[in-house]
Order: sequence, then structure tokens, then C-alpha cells
Amino acid sequence: MCLLLRAHNCESGLNLWRTNRTLRIFSTTSHKNKFTPPKFKIKEGSHMATTTLKGKPFDRQTFDSMLRRRMFYTPSFEIYNGVGGLFDYGPPGCALQANIVDLWRKHFVLEEDMLEVDCTALTPEEVLKTSGHVDKFADWMCKDPKNGDIIRADHFVEEILEARLKGDKEARGLIDNVKTENVKPKKKKLKGTEAIRLEDAVIQEYKEILAKIDNYDGPELGNLITKYEMKNPETGVLPSAPVAFNLMFQTTIGPSSNAPGYFRPETAQGQFVNFAKLLEFNQQQMPFASASVGKSFRNEISPRAGLLRVREFLMAEIEHYVDPEGGKKHSRFHEVKDVELVLLNRETQLAGQTDVRKLAIGTAVSNGTVDNETLGYFLARIHLFLMKIGIDKTKIRFRQHMANEMAHYATDCWDAELLTSYGWIECVGCADRSAYDLTVHAKKTGAPLMVRERLETPISVEEWQIDLNKKKFGPHFKKDGKVIEAAIEATPQCNREALAEELKVKGKIFIDVEGVGTGKVEISNDLISIERRTRVENTREYTPNVIEPSFGIGRILYALLEHNYWSRGSDGGDEARCILSFPPVVAPTKVLLVPLSTHASLKPLVRKISLKLRSLGISSRIDDSSASIGKRYSRNDELGTPLGITIDFQSVKDQTFTLRDRDSTKQVRADEQTVLTAVKALVEGEKMWSDIERDLPSFEGQETDLTES
Amino acid sequence: MCLLLRAHNCESGLNLWRTNRTLRIFSTTSHKNKFTPPKFKIKEGSHMATTTLKGKPFDRQTFDSMLRRRMFYTPSFEIYNGVGGLFDYGPPGCALQANIVDLWRKHFVLEEDMLEVDCTALTPEEVLKTSGHVDKFADWMCKDPKNGDIIRADHFVEEILEARLKGDKEARGLIDNVKTENVKPKKKKLKGTEAIRLEDAVIQEYKEILAKIDNYDGPELGNLITKYEMKNPETGVLPSAPVAFNLMFQTTIGPSSNAPGYFRPETAQGQFVNFAKLLEFNQQQMPFASASVGKSFRNEISPRAGLLRVREFLMAEIEHYVDPEGGKKHSRFHEVKDVELVLLNRETQLAGQTDVRKLAIGTAVSNGTVDNETLGYFLARIHLFLMKIGIDKTKIRFRQHMANEMAHYATDCWDAELLTSYGWIECVGCADRSAYDLTVHAKKTGAPLMVRERLETPISVEEWQIDLNKKKFGPHFKKDGKVIEAAIEATPQCNREALAEELKVKGKIFIDVEGVGTGKVEISNDLISIERRTRVENTREYTPNVIEPSFGIGRILYALLEHNYWSRGSDGGDEARCILSFPPVVAPTKVLLVPLSTHASLKPLVRKISLKLRSLGISSRIDDSSASIGKRYSRNDELGTPLGITIDFQSVKDQTFTLRDRDSTKQVRADEQTVLTAVKALVEGEKMWSDIERDLPSFEGQETDLTES
Repeated sequence: MCLLLRAHNCESGLNLWRTNRTLRIFSTTSHKNKFTPPKFKIKEGSHMATTTLKGKPFDRQTFDSMLRRRMFYTPSFEIYNGVGGLFDYGPPGCALQANIVDLWRKHFVLEEDMLEVDCTALTPEEVLKTSGHVDKFADWMCKDPKNGDIIRADHFVEEILEARLKGDKEARGLIDNVKTENVKPKKKKLKGTEAIRLEDAVIQEYKEILAKIDNYDGPELGNLITKYEMKNPETGVLPSAPVAFNLMFQTTIGPSSNAPGYFRPETAQGQFVNFAKLLEFNQQQMPFASASVGKSFRNEISPRAGLLRVREFLMAEIEHYVDPEGGKKHSRFHEVKDVELVLLNRETQLAGQTDVRKLAIGTAVSNGTVDNETLGYFLARIHLFLMKIGIDKTKIRFRQHMANEMAHYATDCWDAELLTSYGWIECVGCADRSAYDLTVHAKKTGAPLMVRERLETPISVEEWQIDLNKKKFGPHFKKDGKVIEAAIEATPQCNREALAEELKVKGKIFIDVEGVGTGKVEISNDLISIERRTRVENTREYTPNVIEPSFGIGRILYALLEHNYWSRGSDGGDEARCILSFPPVVAPTKVLLVPLSTHASLKPLVRKISLKLRSLGISSRIDDSSASIGKRYSRNDELGTPLGITIDFQSVKDQTFTLRDRDSTKQVRADEQTVLTAVKALVEGEKMWSDIERDLPSFEGQETDLTES
Repeated sequence: MCLLLRAHNCESGLNLWRTNRTLRIFSTTSHKNKFTPPKFKIKEGSHMATTTLKGKPFDRQTFDSMLRRRMFYTPSFEIYNGVGGLFDYGPPGCALQANIVDLWRKHFVLEEDMLEVDCTALTPEEVLKTSGHVDKFADWMCKDPKNGDIIRADHFVEEILEARLKGDKEARGLIDNVKTENVKPKKKKLKGTEAIRLEDAVIQEYKEILAKIDNYDGPELGNLITKYEMKNPETGVLPSAPVAFNLMFQTTIGPSSNAPGYFRPETAQGQFVNFAKLLEFNQQQMPFASASVGKSFRNEISPRAGLLRVREFLMAEIEHYVDPEGGKKHSRFHEVKDVELVLLNRETQLAGQTDVRKLAIGTAVSNGTVDNETLGYFLARIHLFLMKIGIDKTKIRFRQHMANEMAHYATDCWDAELLTSYGWIECVGCADRSAYDLTVHAKKTGAPLMVRERLETPISVEEWQIDLNKKKFGPHFKKDGKVIEAAIEATPQCNREALAEELKVKGKIFIDVEGVGTGKVEISNDLISIERRTRVENTREYTPNVIEPSFGIGRILYALLEHNYWSRGSDGGDEARCILSFPPVVAPTKVLLVPLSTHASLKPLVRKISLKLRSLGISSRIDDSSASIGKRYSRNDELGTPLGITIDFQSVKDQTFTLRDRDSTKQVRADEQTVLTAVKALVEGEKMWSDIERDLPSFEGQETDLTES
């Protein structure tokens, strides 16, 4: 539900006041108390020093230009000058996304017989009113009265204070002003960013404000803006008081204007409202999980940060329903208990540290770091999934939410964060949401969103029971009878003993009944009796708790791209030649077919291999353009195609082909069947390239050609 | 683009005035001239006499209740009383949909190396303004001034006139009034539906209006309502004049109120605006196709007709770009030329007939029934796809659009219609959209949405060329020079010869230039010369034409459900036991695993078989509930699970299992490996059940149990 994505920047040696700040990309949640307040923040678009797959400095500009050149993604409607926060996936991005989702389905849905549903994005207002989104799913924004610009309030306060602190450092000679200006040489120095020395006490105040920037609500942000005279550097005037801006896209369902609706900001609600039917479909068996993959929509105020903060995105969410009693054990926990996770727990963060600990999940649950087995099971399963698709294991950590970050009803919550050039980005949230969601929908609609279980051994309940003498009671109280009866029935067990005592002593009792008379209502013992008796219960009713792993597919995809990117320069080759070393399982295309020339004699062989690969269920592409073979391979290295088969004139003579490995550029040569068998083994992960190189004769023929550009 | 779905009702023997009417479920298009006007219509919710897979009468109520009981689908937000036109797919519906889409990708995208893209649903207004949707994608609606009800104008006129015609028949004794009332006994007879005899001329007028109901625009519908005093039977007053109601869901992008956006009503526009990048990705090679699978949204005025007319639905669209010259040949047409299609052509419909012709697509193209090879190729490929997923081959036809049904720019258009209990439903549209879409977007944005091809043999073009004496021209006309020059350059070839003649004869020419002086502008021969010369062209530029197969996945899914539905009653069994005989390739689950009892000794075997099936990539489900084995199989027959494996006590002893066929309920028994091999062969379509029955010993043991309920 609350995929709340963060980026922790740990370039602590560089800008002290930016250490450990959070990029709150999915910035809000529907919590009853407040918008989940991430403590630390970095500014959007921040560039963090990170490395490529081969450990060289990562250059985002080169990387991004490659992604766009190869059409992994493109800004939507670019010929119409585009719209912020909307991106299309081109063919390789689309295939990569489909492969990630396919693997997700196999890893989670099929592996555990989850009940996958496909619910509508369009949602009537009432549902999102109940869930809290209509009232609370908002950011605070101000308007500049002079130029009409719309400003996100928390970002504004933060930027102003950071600029002042930076100006102070400059004034104190702690920052090389010239060097800073070199970074953005064209940007004119705006009012408010001058090098002005601040008093020490003021510096302290600013730092404290920045440290808890996410804890302020709108009025508080407004007060800060006024108190510290934070004028908009663009116009020199104070922005207006912050108002809440709901992040959902609103529309109207049907032709009448009184049916407001929203496009869902998450896929969870569709699953919750179907709980009773899903339980029935699962033949009343608990525990079980529902799952959903689909688009969600959030109307960000001013999205930047490329593919990370977008207005339309693909989510994959699981709602695992579990009995709240019995410690939330999981029957398959033993299968994952030895999986080691990098954990950043609550206490460490409270102490202002970012030291992580590597811990087997079995230990983390047994020592209380992670609240329960079911939550721990999913953390381990998330870790295994991310490893499977090719996330760099040195760039993943699980960060626990701090108490004030979580919704008031949540028991425990961990984010799987992936390290990118934007910092640590929350890509998967995994929360124990208690019984909150099912309870609010049940309360609002009266639908029985609960489990009714037959008890194997019935239990005896001793309790105070109230009996009314119906014959006398009705005639005695006349029209007030029903209301008084309801008030009596509503008396909680804890108060009944005292009533019984009063009845015994005085022969009557006095109770408050709203709407009946002015004082207390008197009920004598000819109308009522109260006794302690034993009742036998054969069934048990409870509202399940929900453990919710929630995946931002677009963010995982983006991190995957960064993690698998490197340049041949790292291997002593051409710096300009880039590679995306996807594992075959997620690679958009598995095999590139390259005829050495456009000569007609090669075509039938190309077609034959292509058909054979298709019948093996392996996706391939033919590149029969007139570019040099080196160029064609180079292009496909950037597309992340792990294998290449070259069809040359020798192939026509003896039906042998060369098979090329993307990462090493090494080639082997063998007959058709051997090559296809090797391809299948590599794609299915049964063999590594080193196995193939050991078993088959190497081929050097086209290697020279490969360096030709 | 214009998935325009229709249902033709051919219960011609029953209600004469309903014959051949069309259910226009996707009712509008963005055509420049008018909303595509389907000629024939049936009312929503109409029930057509059709049959089950085994030829018995189809009972929609039983069928629908089964679909909901098994959670193939459910009204969205039902605990909140739901919203019209929104449905969720439960686990089997969701899996069925995923399997259809997966097969679609293999059949179209992978088979032809199409470039699949994933574009945003959220679309800025300008894009849809250009495409015509903002102005034209609308239905006409009226308001009842008394009760405020909103009424769809064409449906209203139709219902009133049909009720009057029916009243006339009753008055003439041609309809058994009592019998009619028996059908809806609780519905009170409303004003306007009384049995009143009409004059013969009036009957004729009404029939003519009904025949062309889709050709009327809003004002015309308004005139009809006034002229024939069509009062709303609910209130007895005339509805207001019809106003256009745009069917797109509108919203605002970002916090400013001046950025209107819509949720796309189709996936096509995202593909068109990316054309230049896709062509580049395809290395400038033509022809090629882009493709997209995604949700679209249409704000229907009052959706009924269950899963067929919905407000949010999954579409799969292909945009195949082809050179308009050379007859739109297709290089793989020979592969499909013998595929026979059931065609309902334009001429037949114009003659008021519904007689179809079965024709090989090769013949249909060569005799001109279908406009060109590329269009014909896709019609055949659509047919093959529908056959592959299990559509009944006797319930499919291709209906050609009539001239006034097509957009003015379209060359030819055919709908794949599937017969359901709602009539013939358009499930796939396949149109040749000429160069319209790319042209309008290029014109609006200036983006080069065209192909530039190097000519193998350069061509010589003889033409009239105009040269200006720049030295004198500028100084002579001063500030008007530029405008006059532009006007001269704009002179079309066809007018230049006359100008040259005039210049030769008079020594000067006179031309109209808007905004310059009051009369014609005089240009003497010292400023201009006009000569006929030869120019050599090395490249050719053209805007590709688009052939667009557009699939409504939800409708195909619904038709598939109807086509595969039957009851054991047809085989002499229990009428209440229903079956969905999906082909294994689309079945939500392939194998049901049934332990004979809940005894612990069976569990390890169940788990073992389950894991083996998973490693074979075959989806299975375990039903270890305490219901009888017959009940469990029966439940899974309704879910369309084609195979069942029973694990019994004999299995524990000798590792043999029974394998059950859903359709025949026949069983065979063999050892684990033999059973798994048989399952794989059946699921992959390599063997039929009859092969298995021939090869393996039959098993009768549980058959008696199967009839137990």
C-alpha cells in the first residue's frame, strides 16, 4: 500500500548537510496520523558518486544517452514537447519489463499459489475516502503571488535553508565558490544564494529544521517560511501559505457530475475489497495471499529524477493474509532461514548511523530485529528475487522504518533499497499492516471481511449474561424499549459485574441511554437478570493481518540498468563501447543472429536458426543490416543481448556457426545442434560461459572485426 | 484505433424490427466526418438464442452465475455497491487473460519481430485534440427536466419507437400481450408502451428512422424527439435537446489547472507519436510494425451488457507501417493464402442480407473483396489466432465496414465478429487507415513522421522552376519581399506553365499576395524567370500507411468463455454440472492435483508431483480440501482445468497415478514418469486425449465417485 520510496545519499565526505537525506519519491501515504515522514532527504536530481558493474566511476549522462539512443525509454509525447513524469518504454525497455514481471509471477505467484487478480484502476471516491487517500494522500504546495509558480513547500524550505547554509560556508571560506560555480556555470546567482555569514545559533536552528523537514505539516511549513522570511529567489516575494495538494488524478465516472472517481495510487485497495470472495475462492483456507500487477497513478507536483519519480508506473503488490494469533509463523520459513540480508535497523538510524549488518533472516527474526516469521520470509524472498533478476548484491540493503515513519497501525516495515547514482532508492516496501485495511472497509460497508474458523476443540467462555423479561420489558418502556434494550446489550463485560452487584443489592439498576429522558433510566429486577454463566464457542472469528510486499517495477528496472552497465574501457577496450550485462533470464533478447554479409546464400540459414530458436522458446533477433559485424555486436551489447550467433560462408559449407559471449566477446565454433544446445543451457542458467569455452573450440576469426567500428 | 464493436442479432424469425441491428458497444470513433455510423443495432442486454459447445440452448443466467461463483470476474467494488461498467478479474479470469495475451505476443509480436512499446495511458489534451478525440469522441445525451435522469439520445429514440411499434402489433393482435407480460411480470406498463394502433404510413416512417438510427447527429435526434413527441415514459415529459458527451475520462496533469489531460481511449496514439524513433530503432527498414498491450478507458453513458461494454478494458493493438505504393504487398502472404475465412462483404450488407461466403484469403484479395495483401494477411493471422485460443470456428465471421461506416480516410476495414448470446460482437477490428494518423501528428508538431528512402535508381523529374533575381528583387519590394517570394514559391506546378507563358508574352506577371497592397502584385522579367528543367532525385520521401489490427481482449475472453461452455446434461449426465472446455494452452490451470483423502501419507507425493510439474513449466493446483473427489473435479471442470491427477493409497504403494480428462471424464493409470510425459504432450498440444487413452490402461475406480455430488 505505501510504497514509499527513498534515496539515501551516503556521499558523507562531500556535503555534510546532505548526508543521509532521503529522496522521498513516492512521497505520501494514507496514514491516519500523517504523511509518512522520512527523516532524511536528498534533493531530486542529486548525483551520487557510484560505480559501474566493473567498478569504474558511473557517468549518468553517458548512461542516460545510451538508454535513450537504444530506446529503453523515451519521454512520452516528446514531439508535443512531452509532459513531466511520463515515460514510454521502447522495445528493449518493454521486453525487460515483461521479463521482470514474468519472473516475479513465477517467483511469487506460482511458487506460492497466490490468487492473482486484475482490478480496475478507476476507483469510486468512497473507497479511497475509507482508505484515507482522499483526505491524506497529499503534498503541501505554495504559490508565488508574483509569477504564479507552484512550489512544493517542503522542497522549498529545504532548498532555501540549504542555500543559506551554503552561502554561510562560502562566506567563511569553507567552500571554494569558484569551483561550485564551475559545476553550473550558466546559472545566474539568485537572490538568497549569496555568500552571507550566519550566526552560529541560526546555523544550528536551520540544521534542526532540515533534520526533521518531513515532520512538518502545511501550517508549520508556512510558519517557517514567514518566520525566516524565505522569499522565492526567482521573484523576491514570499510564497503563499501552503495548501494541501492531493496526489490522485481525479475524474468523473459517467455523465453525471456527482460521481467523482480517482485513478488508483496503488493496487492494494482492489485486493482488500475483494477479500471475502478471495477467501471463498481459497475454500476458506488460511493463510493465503492475493497479488496484482498493474499501473498506478500519482499526480506529482513537479517530477524530476527521470524514471524514478513518475506519474504513471507499474506496481506489483502482494497482500498476504495471516492469523494475528500464534506469532505469525510461516510454514516455509525454514526454507529461507539461512538467507543473509544486509540490514539497517531502526536503532542504528536513530543513533544517526548508516552501519549495516549482514544477518541470516533466521537470526534476525529470532533476536527480534525483524518482527515475525512471515515478514522475515518475505524479506528473504524479495532478496532472492532481486538476486535472480541481476541486481548487484553489493548494492542492496533492507532499511527498517523508524517508529515515526510507519503508519500508526503498522507493526514493522522494511524497505529493500537499491543503490543508484540517485542514492539509496526504495524499490520494494514490505510492511506488516496489521488488520487496518480490512477493518476500515468492513466498518464502512458492513461486509464481513473476516475469517470464521471452526475450532478443533471448542472453548468455554465464562461471562456475565444479561436476560430481559421480554413480556414485561416492552410494555413497560413502550417506544423506548428497543433503544434501552440495545444500550443494555452494549454494556461491556467489564462493567457487568458491578451492574449485577447493584441489581442484587438495590433490586434495580440505573443506566444512561442517549435520547431517552433526561436522567438515568431505572430498570428493576422484575425486568432484568444478570448472571455469570459458561458459554461454549465452536467457531472463532478474526480479521486477518496483512503482510504487504509492494514492488515498484519501474524503479527495480532502472536500478537493474545501472547495476548491469559498464564500458569496454574497463577491460582495456574502447571507452565509448557500453554493455548491459543482464542475466539471460531478463535480457530483452537472448540471441542475436548476425549474417556476416547481406549475401543471399546466408539468408536460408539465418531463417532456419531463427525458427529452431523459436521452437526452443528462446527469443532472438536478426540483424542483417549492412553495418559491420563489429558495429552490429556493439549495438546489441548496449541492448544487453547475451549471445550472438554468426552465420558466415563457412556455415553454408559445413553448417558450423560461431557463438559469441557478450561479456567477454569470446567466441566458440561448432555445428548447429551443439550451438543450439549450448544456447539453451546458457539461457536457462544451467551452464556458464566458462563451461562452454571449456567444452567447445574457440574461434578467433571475427575478433579483429569486432574492434572495427 | 477505432475498435468499434458491434453485435448483429440474427434471430430474424422472432422480432422483425430487431433483425440485424447492431450493438454499438464501443460506440464512437474520432473520424473527421462523423461518429462511425453502424447501421444496425440491438438493444443492450438483448438475449440471443445461441447454443453451448455441445449444441444445447445456452442459458446466460446459469452461465453468468457460474462465472461469478468461480470468480472469473466480479463487479468492481461490489461491497461499495459497485460502479457500472467496472469489473475485476478473479484468479481464473486473470490467468485466462494472461494466457490469451501471452499467446497473442507469441503469435503476433515474436513471430514478426514487431516492436512492442509500453506507453502511458495518461495523455495531454493536445495529442488527443490532433487525433480528433477531443472534438469527436462523443455520444449524444439528453436530460429529463423532471427527474434529472441522463439518457443516451440514440438509445432513447430507438426504445420509444420500438415500444410504439410493439404497441401497434399488440393492438393489431400480432403479439400475444399476455405472453410478453409473462417475461417481465413485475414491470409496470409505462406511458408510451400501451397497445395503440398506428397508421401504416407512421409505421413506415418509424421503421425508416430505426434503420438509419446511427446516422443521426445530436440536433437531428433532437428534432425527431420533438417531431414525434417522444416523452420519457418515466416522467411523461420531453427530454432536453441532446448535447455531446465526450467519452474520455478527463483529469488535470500537475498542480496547475491549465494542463488538461485524458486517460487514453485506445493505445494507438502512443505508438503514432513515437513513429520516428521506432523507425530509427528498426534501422530505417520498412515495412515494420509496432504493438502495444494496455488498458484503455471510455466513460460510457450507461454501460450494461456485462463484460462487453465496460469503462476500463485491455486492448492489444498493432500498427503495421507499409509503403502506400506497390499495392501494399506482404512478403509472407503466401504462407496464409489458403486460409479460409467466413466473409460478410459490403455489397451483401447493402442488399440487406447477412449471407456469408467462405473464401480463401488469397482469392478474396485477388478478386478485390479485400483491398490488399497486407490487410488480407492480417485478417488470416487474426483468424488463426482466434482458432488457436479456442474460439468456435462456426461462430466467427469477418464483416466488412460499409462506406459510411468507415472513417473518410480509411481504405478498407473488416471486423472479426464472434457470435455470443448478445449477438455478433466485434472483437477485433482490422483497418487500413491510410496515412491519416501520421499526417495529422506531423502537421501539428512539425515532426518528420515519414520514411526517407534512398532510390536504387535515381529518377529524373521534369518541372517548371522559378528563379528570382535576388539582387534586384529584395530592394524592389522592400519589406514585402519575403512574403511575395513565399507566394511565388508556393505556386503549384500546374499553374507555372501559364505564368511562364504570361511572362514570355507580357514581360511581366501579376499575382495575388495576401496582405500586400490591394490588387495584384506586378513582377517584371528583370526580377523573375520561369523555365522547364530536369531535376534528379536520389531519395524518396513518403508517409507510410497504417494497417491496424486492434483487439478487445476482454471481449475475446468473454466469447471464449461462452464458446467453451457446456453441461454434462448434454452427455446424459447431470445438467447442473458445467464445464469450460478451454484448450490447454489458455486454460488458467493445466493440472489439478487431487489427493484421495486428507491422510498425511499422501501429502509427500502430492508435493513431489507438484514440484515436477513446476519444473516442466506446467501450472498446477492442489485441491486437498475435504470435499468428495467428485465435487473437487466438478469444481475444476467449471474452472476449465483440462487434466487431473489423483493421488490415492495405491500411489503410495506402487507410485502409480490416475490421469483424468476433463471433457470425457475418462481416466488412465500409469507410473509417475508416464503420467508426466502424457501431461506434457497434452498441454503442449502434441497429443490428444484419444492418443493417451489408446496408449495407457484405463482406470474405472473413481468414476463412480465422480458422479457423487
